[in-house]
Amino acid sequence: MNTFGDNFRVTTWGESHGKALGAVIDGCPSNLPISEEDIQNELNRRRPGYSIFSTPRKEEDKLEILSGIFEGKTTGTPISGLVFNKGQKSKDYSKIKNTPRPGHADLNYFLKYGNYDYRGGGRSSGRTTIGNVIGGAVAKKLIEFTHNIKIIGYSTKIGKINGDFDYYKNPEFFESNSNIEKLFEKIENNPLRCPSKNSDEMKDYVLDAMDKQDSVGGIIEIIIKGIPQGVGNPVFNKLEGKLGSAFIGINAVKGFEIGRGFESSELYGSEMNDSYYMNKDSIKGKTNNTGGIIGGISTGSPVVLRVSIKPTPSISKIQESVNLISNENEKIEIGGRHDPIIVPRVIPVLESMAAITVADLMISSGYIDPCRI
Amino acid sequence: MNTFGDNFRVTTWGESHGKALGAVIDGCPSNLPISEEDIQNELNRRRPGYSIFSTPRKEEDKLEILSGIFEGKTTGTPISGLVFNKGQKSKDYSKIKNTPRPGHADLNYFLKYGNYDYRGGGRSSGRTTIGNVIGGAVAKKLIEFTHNIKIIGYSTKIGKINGDFDYYKNPEFFESNSNIEKLFEKIENNPLRCPSKNSDEMKDYVLDAMDKQDSVGGIIEIIIKGIPQGVGNPVFNKLEGKLGSAFIGINAVKGFEIGRGFESSELYGSEMNDSYYMNKDSIKGKTNNTGGIIGGISTGSPVVLRVSIKPTPSISKIQESVNLISNENEKIEIGGRHDPIIVPRVIPVLESMAAITVADLMISSGYIDPCRI
Amino acid sequence: MNTFGDNFRVTTWGESHGKALGAVIDGCPSNLPISEEDIQNELNRRRPGYSIFSTPRKEEDKLEILSGIFEGKTTGTPISGLVFNKGQKSKDYSKIKNTPRPGHADLNYFLKYGNYDYRGGGRSSGRTTIGNVIGGAVAKKLIEFTHNIKIIGYSTKIGKINGDFDYYKNPEFFESNSNIEKLFEKIENNPLRCPSKNSDEMKDYVLDAMDKQDSVGGIIEIIIKGIPQGVGNPVFNKLEGKLGSAFIGINAVKGFEIGRGFESSELYGSEMNDSYYMNKDSIKGKTNNTGGIIGGISTGSPVVLRVSIKPTPSISKIQESVNLISNENEKIEIGGRHDPIIVPRVIPVLESMAAITVADLMISSGYIDPCRI
Amino acid sequence: MNTFGDNFRVTTWGESHGKALGAVIDGCPSNLPISEEDIQNELNRRRPGYSIFSTPRKEEDKLEILSGIFEGKTTGTPISGLVFNKGQKSKDYSKIKNTPRPGHADLNYFLKYGNYDYRGGGRSSGRTTIGNVIGGAVAKKLIEFTHNIKIIGYSTKIGKINGDFDYYKNPEFFESNSNIEKLFEKIENNPLRCPSKNSDEMKDYVLDAMDKQDSVGGIIEIIIKGIPQGVGNPVFNKLEGKLGSAFIGINAVKGFEIGRGFESSELYGSEMNDSYYMNKDSIKGKTNNTGGIIGGISTGSPVVLRVSIKPTPSISKIQESVNLISNENEKIEIGGRHDPIIVPRVIPVLESMAAITVADLMISSGYIDPCRI
Repeated sequence: MNTFGDNFRVTTWGESHGKALGAVIDGCPSNLPISEEDIQNELNRRRPGYSIFSTPRKEEDKLEILSGIFEGKTTGTPISGLVFNKGQKSKDYSKIKNTPRPGHADLNYFLKYGNYDYRGGGRSSGRTTIGNVIGGAVAKKLIEFTHNIKIIGYSTKIGKINGDFDYYKNPEFFESNSNIEKLFEKIENNPLRCPSKNSDEMKDYVLDAMDKQDSVGGIIEIIIKGIPQGVGNPVFNKLEGKLGSAFIGINAVKGFEIGRGFESSELYGSEMNDSYYMNKDSIKGKTNNTGGIIGGISTGSPVVLRVSIKPTPSISKIQESVNLISNENEKIEIGGRHDPIIVPRVIPVLESMAAITVADLMISSGYIDPCRI
Repeated sequence: MNTFGDNFRVTTWGESHGKALGAVIDGCPSNLPISEEDIQNELNRRRPGYSIFSTPRKEEDKLEILSGIFEGKTTGTPISGLVFNKGQKSKDYSKIKNTPRPGHADLNYFLKYGNYDYRGGGRSSGRTTIGNVIGGAVAKKLIEFTHNIKIIGYSTKIGKINGDFDYYKNPEFFESNSNIEKLFEKIENNPLRCPSKNSDEMKDYVLDAMDKQDSVGGIIEIIIKGIPQGVGNPVFNKLEGKLGSAFIGINAVKGFEIGRGFESSELYGSEMNDSYYMNKDSIKGKTNNTGGIIGGISTGSPVVLRVSIKPTPSISKIQESVNLISNENEKIEIGGRHDPIIVPRVIPVLESMAAITVADLMISSGYIDPCRI
Repeated sequence: MNTFGDNFRVTTWGESHGKALGAVIDGCPSNLPISEEDIQNELNRRRPGYSIFSTPRKEEDKLEILSGIFEGKTTGTPISGLVFNKGQKSKDYSKIKNTPRPGHADLNYFLKYGNYDYRGGGRSSGRTTIGNVIGGAVAKKLIEFTHNIKIIGYSTKIGKINGDFDYYKNPEFFESNSNIEKLFEKIENNPLRCPSKNSDEMKDYVLDAMDKQDSVGGIIEIIIKGIPQGVGNPVFNKLEGKLGSAFIGINAVKGFEIGRGFESSELYGSEMNDSYYMNKDSIKGKTNNTGGIIGGISTGSPVVLRVSIKPTPSISKIQESVNLISNENEKIEIGGRHDPIIVPRVIPVLESMAAITVADLMISSGYIDPCRI
Repeated sequence: MNTFGDNFRVTTWGESHGKALGAVIDGCPSNLPISEEDIQNELNRRRPGYSIFSTPRKEEDKLEILSGIFEGKTTGTPISGLVFNKGQKSKDYSKIKNTPRPGHADLNYFLKYGNYDYRGGGRSSGRTTIGNVIGGAVAKKLIEFTHNIKIIGYSTKIGKINGDFDYYKNPEFFESNSNIEKLFEKIENNPLRCPSKNSDEMKDYVLDAMDKQDSVGGIIEIIIKGIPQGVGNPVFNKLEGKLGSAFIGINAVKGFEIGRGFESSELYGSEMNDSYYMNKDSIKGKTNNTGGIIGGISTGSPVVLRVSIKPTPSISKIQESVNLISNENEKIEIGGRHDPIIVPRVIPVLESMAAITVADLMISSGYIDPCRI
């Protein structure tokens, strides 16, 4: 189904070449101050055309809020927001209409539903994440307004180039809010949203792939700062399980890890366990190998998450596919321009999914009143 | 909450040192032939004491089915199964009663619920996965009986030692059912459930860690063989999202990947995309880099999943913690014997979660009738 | 929350005086032929101003479909439909802004959410049932297209005047589809949607109440014809429980009954039980006292439901209330014109809720494929 | 499915002649003091054999709690409770094995699931309400402990005999807690759980039906006292909708009403609307025609609900049915003794469902902390 969350629920709808795309947000308590601009800002961060590594289609993605906000505040009723599609010009699809693109969900959708929207992936297009970002913008506002929680994302690896900036190289850095604000500015001013010193090297790597008519993936790190202790549930409705499901639900994601993640498989127990100590009146972990979550529940340390993003499947190179009508092998050449890398544009989407997950579990864990704040 | 699944639902209950642990399975269609023995066999696979790397507590874990099966077949009503705890002798907990164990959820539970079951982790104990395995055994039977789907798991890495057997080194191997049966036998006869040639080296690695009073993690690969094309949903209720949530919900899991996973971040689009070709009358992928899932929906190729398991947090070494009464730093020494590695025992649990997820989505995708088979 | 249904889900949003109202329909299988006109027709049936007993505000309620339908058929993706509000002129609310209207949810909303939309009830307005009707129109089409199921509603009582036409007076009548078509025409041509011979008497009753600046209630009967045997579930997700929840969810409904309903409390078991007999090759009930449902599951006989509708709470008479600012008792006089009876306008809304419920349970019971038809 | 509730969830399982029946309660916050005896007392109220109007099968219905309670308090983990079946002697079912009983769900289950438990209805038996009562007992304790809410039920009509005691004849009576305690005692000492002066007349009416080998229905009123203002939600997850779904989910229930219910259809708006006035510092309704709920949300007045209970379908009279093997009409005579009326035994079940619903919505409305109290 197209709904994410149990107590703070986001239902998204819309196709890449339909009339509009949007989301209905249900379960946001009343009295949250929020404006259309707050949400528009987040939409602008994922909009195409914002850097050299993004398709130059200059979609405006202008938000309209149709319900749920009255006199500048949420009312407790569902918030409906949408973006009308503009400039989705009817181009010539005849070449690819019956030839599913490798790496895309075209064939899958066709076999499952008996139809697919050949005009650009329909519901499987990355464009549908507009709904995620609308929902995420409200969730971000809610958790920041009530608990001063910040969510920040950046790339730590592009293709084969490792960056030099990640949480575990800089744990103390993340203890200061002003550091985080400076970091955010740095990220937003970088075309790869990468705060590493060697980001120019990464840039060249992507430019080189563009020359080869190819595409590139990467790794994104998401930090959730300020989440109180106790958010999440044991067993099945875990904080990490919900975050994992949220992130893996983004089509390009092929891997997910928390804290030390895959590296933890190589450590001894005595290396991995975070020792406790008294820090003034509260109990803290000396390290944060666990990434801020144990047994489904937040520890109070920053939550550290990483995802692997596959290279964009749309490439200009000729690829091998089949023709669905003739049932014969057929080469396919996807015209137009494509994002050579979607890592930077996925970042606000992952931040949105993190925000929705945290808002949802903070309501169900009793940290945010479900009716009004 | 303690329920997993939407259409095939497993609700687990019970604590490590309570009277019993169990599961209620709701949504299994009627007419599935199943016996207590089928379920008991799976429970035996996760039972402690089955190898040198598992605690010698010889819990019997004897299953009782109390409802939902009549005259050897499911009836369509909820299946309630449980295991009474035996031999959970009341030992002396006074030393650790007020000192949360690092790496465990003790402190988290205490801060969240205002209580914790100091007798062995209560609900956060690995022992609660008995419920997962009861549910998984029914799900395995359902998907094997109706669609001949097989789920097989094994370790591919122990501590720092990489194995030489995994799906990508042997893709053709997995095309034969008799190969899979032989593989299963090999796995079950190995104390680390590792089919690699160098498993003795891994064994030594674990024995060495035991000598050091330490513990070891590893990586597990789970293959789902025979899943038809079209299982799963776009956007939020994706096959990969549900599997991710299911696996990450197991306490020791710190990372999850599908297909090429984290490696995909290093590939070019032209390397990662699986080309299509006509194989007799059906469309197949030349490779399976995507791991059998695109856009939330199964492609018909084997589903390939990998998880990272952290080292067991219970170790005999002295560790640093705090006393919850005195609010002072305190060393903790956890007595008794512990599993130096839980990787092999987690395998049947992950297989169970995979089976429940697949059963659930096959019902909601219309592959298995929700009422009767 | 604002979502109804589990497998066929309708999420409604919007307020009476907001920018727009609408619904997102999730879980409708692909390939259902449907047009905007199909949905518009149902919206027209609940639109104000269609008879002398309805407010003369001539809202156009023009539907727009923004997603989920491609080339005249559903695609399996969420269907988003909405109606922009027009002519909700900003009138002078100063008199009633702080004085909750008796019989309305104004006070309740204010105390719960700390705000209320004084411009006409906001989310508690009957106008929000536009979303229900959009969802219901799709559901009606789905169950009619796949199983030829018809849902028909009419009033059987207006105020104190009992009608002479209901299911139990005419059980054989409902066995013919052409009878049902004629009945539908008769209902739609009657301002009270009442097929009884004495409907003129009822009309006078309402006119008399209008003269007294008062309002009138009534009883509605809903028949679901053609529902196959086996729809619904035992215990908690029952056909009757879901229908009851759906109907009671409409604000004006204060009572709900199935089959003989409250009358069944007066019968002996030997009178109430429907005997079985062989009718050609199938087993039928001689009577249908149970109203087509036993134990949560449809019997194959027509489903017979009745609801009690309270008189419209908006009346022109002076009423007693309190001022929320001064905390003093205050009289309130609600200006403008109001529906003296909403019974006829509630009928398409109840039909919609019945259709959504039946569609939802037919999918979860395996009668309609969840992916494509 | 077999789960009721969203935030306070009760999953019931078990069949009338299986090994055991029980419930898993998920979402009860930690720190609620509760004993097995608290739950056993409620089970005793619904146990057969407690009066002359109940089958003399003296099932002990001895409760066992297997998880979720530690040192006399809930722990926040799932509470698993069950009752082992005893003395379900294997009697001779050969006469009725293939002949579905009129008024029961036998035929329905058989056609839906391809099997039915001929030994006494299996999952459709009233005996499965043991699970409801286990869940309800915990919910009652939770809402009484945290908010002093009382739920009380009694019969107001037996067969054709109207009682003289109901809420609307005695609204002031219900304002005193000591009155309610006295009322409860009177109810529990009456074999029909009827506090009316003419209950002896009702008793004779049932005895007369027993002589005729027939059965009798009735009407039950349930009062929820002390529920705070604001519980419930607009639109679909309404307090009245949830209560309706909960009550209609009990097999014998054929009608449900709130407040004036069906009578409200006969009233004018000016009669039905409850006027507001200032009562010291709070706003109260002068009357409670609405039954304590408007627009999905509690008003703070007592919640008044009524249900119609059909006569017990099991009667000793010869009835007409069909043989499922021979497909011929066949008479059926159901041997053994049966409850001539189940109205009094249904009362604790309805109270349980009311308690679960209120607990669930108080958690989701922010009145009860979801984690710990």
